[in-house]
Amino acid sequence: MHFSKRGHDVHALDNYLRRRAHREQATDSLIPILESLPARAKAWKEVAGLDVGVTEDNICEYEVVERLVQQFEPDTIIHYGEMPSAPYSHKTREHAAFTQYNNVVATLHVLFAMAEHAPDAHLVKLGTMGEYGTPNIDIEEGFIQVHHNGRSDTLPYPKQPGSWYHLSKVHDSHNIQFASRIWGTRATDLNQGVVYGIETEETKLDPRLATRFDYDEVFGTALNRFCLQAVIGHPLTVYGRGGQTRGYLNIVDTMRCVELAALNPPAQGEYRVFNQFTEQFSIVELAELVQKAGAEYGLPVEVEHLDNPRVEREEHYYNAAHTKLLDLGLEPHFLSETLIESMLGIIEKHRERVIPELIRPKTRWRAVRERQPALE
Amino acid sequence: MHFSKRGHDVHALDNYLRRRAHREQATDSLIPILESLPARAKAWKEVAGLDVGVTEDNICEYEVVERLVQQFEPDTIIHYGEMPSAPYSHKTREHAAFTQYNNVVATLHVLFAMAEHAPDAHLVKLGTMGEYGTPNIDIEEGFIQVHHNGRSDTLPYPKQPGSWYHLSKVHDSHNIQFASRIWGTRATDLNQGVVYGIETEETKLDPRLATRFDYDEVFGTALNRFCLQAVIGHPLTVYGRGGQTRGYLNIVDTMRCVELAALNPPAQGEYRVFNQFTEQFSIVELAELVQKAGAEYGLPVEVEHLDNPRVEREEHYYNAAHTKLLDLGLEPHFLSETLIESMLGIIEKHRERVIPELIRPKTRWRAVRERQPALE
Repeated sequence: MHFSKRGHDVHALDNYLRRRAHREQATDSLIPILESLPARAKAWKEVAGLDVGVTEDNICEYEVVERLVQQFEPDTIIHYGEMPSAPYSHKTREHAAFTQYNNVVATLHVLFAMAEHAPDAHLVKLGTMGEYGTPNIDIEEGFIQVHHNGRSDTLPYPKQPGSWYHLSKVHDSHNIQFASRIWGTRATDLNQGVVYGIETEETKLDPRLATRFDYDEVFGTALNRFCLQAVIGHPLTVYGRGGQTRGYLNIVDTMRCVELAALNPPAQGEYRVFNQFTEQFSIVELAELVQKAGAEYGLPVEVEHLDNPRVEREEHYYNAAHTKLLDLGLEPHFLSETLIESMLGIIEKHRERVIPELIRPKTRWRAVRERQPALE
Repeated sequence: MHFSKRGHDVHALDNYLRRRAHREQATDSLIPILESLPARAKAWKEVAGLDVGVTEDNICEYEVVERLVQQFEPDTIIHYGEMPSAPYSHKTREHAAFTQYNNVVATLHVLFAMAEHAPDAHLVKLGTMGEYGTPNIDIEEGFIQVHHNGRSDTLPYPKQPGSWYHLSKVHDSHNIQFASRIWGTRATDLNQGVVYGIETEETKLDPRLATRFDYDEVFGTALNRFCLQAVIGHPLTVYGRGGQTRGYLNIVDTMRCVELAALNPPAQGEYRVFNQFTEQFSIVELAELVQKAGAEYGLPVEVEHLDNPRVEREEHYYNAAHTKLLDLGLEPHFLSETLIESMLGIIEKHRERVIPELIRPKTRWRAVRERQPALE
């Protein structure tokens, strides 16, 4: 919708993987997502008068990608078509293998279809800031100049991802970079931070155009979940000590970042990485912000520290570069109490749909056997 | 056989992937490999009086790995069970996707089976020096201390692999390291150089115990192929300028390295990397060595520079650390003219089996579309 409204000719492909994964996990979006992709395109046509083509199919079948690339002849391929959840990838061995198979093969198919049928197109791929982990040095945008034993080279930034899901994105990054090298593919890898917020200008236009809002332990993310917990009177569930610091961005900025990447394609054969976030917060900082905004809104908010279900550092250095999108013109919408309060208002409207049992973490990284490793 | 002879209780699992891939590509080992795995175990019993258990099955089926780990209760799992060829992975899109799917999922299955059923076992995994690519700084053994903006950290060495196959090994390395972190898995990743040679003390004992010798463009490697070309009067086929430098080791040292890794397991939760090679050579250096040994042996040997079918630097810095296995006691068998001459002799015995049409490279890295990328 964002691109369609700005005059681009858009075709969307979806196989409803997330909807199926939600059904499998007996979870659901707070904001109801009821319509099919064609029905949503029809609603967009009614509301905005614009056509968006749609295909309901799976890019793990190469013929699907190939046919669409041949027929549509894209200038830009925005690839969001992956399993998106770290906890989901840790549910069982099958979920881990599925996540890596699905994401790696889907991306290989996109790369091969581009090389075969759209060699001048630009791939905009959704990566994640989670690919970097939490190194004890500054995080750069994809590459780092390393000085070593009197020599130096600019090398891919070393990756220390924290889940089977995040690993799948690291595998993709290596594969995409290689495709640029051998075939001259143009590619932008958007290493996205945690997205918060509920609405964009387009999703607001009609309930059928809404985007999902996940708050459950499998698909939900920190700030969104905290806002929901504040509304329903559930303590904010901080994993461990809560010193985990990450990059965050508003959903509105997400769309603008993808647009900026698409409007400014890299050279043929160039693989570039943008760190796509606008601010860093630790989990306890977010909890405090929500507590404060809740107070303004008239909600008493408590914070509860849970045993961390993940294996991650709870106190660590974190300083990640994120200037490339600003250089292209991104004007960030920073997190404010006002925004949090407006989120609280929207959540309030749907509060009868909340299933509180879905919030607390059940998926444990050490599961299989609950062993304590000797090293960390 | 190497471990069996040294008093270890061994069980071998194979699904004959390489044999099937050879049949598919209409190629074959110079040394005939005719017997099944059970027949080879039987031959070993006859010759050495020792039992080696065998299973003919596929580790991409989890139940296979799980059952074997539960029944055999291994102290060490030596994981060689992957598709091993870079050109094979570049044959078609299907070969690329198969290589990554097969190798990544196979290794995930080994990791999960260990975590579930053999949490104290030690995984010895066959990686490759090709994971590193050719950076302009010294290559270290798996990790590098990076100083950056006044801080420093020891991080996974940045990887720039050169084929879909080598990428699959990089994916594995990240997955294995993560398993060590969340489950405490002990793991040694053997980043092996190019192996040359034909025989070990064990393979010599009986023709049924021979190991394969691949010289074709898909499965063959540089030095072995050069020796064969010298014998049949085929010019040595150097790809491009031939400045490509890599680590090499004798097949006898390969076995000793795996043994040293197994006898000296890492701590619980430790993921360590050994660079497993003994000497560095450029392709033209190897060609010259074979030319010289050929002359001693009475063979006139010519060298031919071919258009490089791969995408790789043909002149580059290369200096890779390889001290960890030496520290554990490896006594290298260095490459000598004598060894090359003895290889020429063995190849001579099988020369009537050579199919010269299989030697020249057909698989091109840039295929799909023969495009020249703007960057390299």
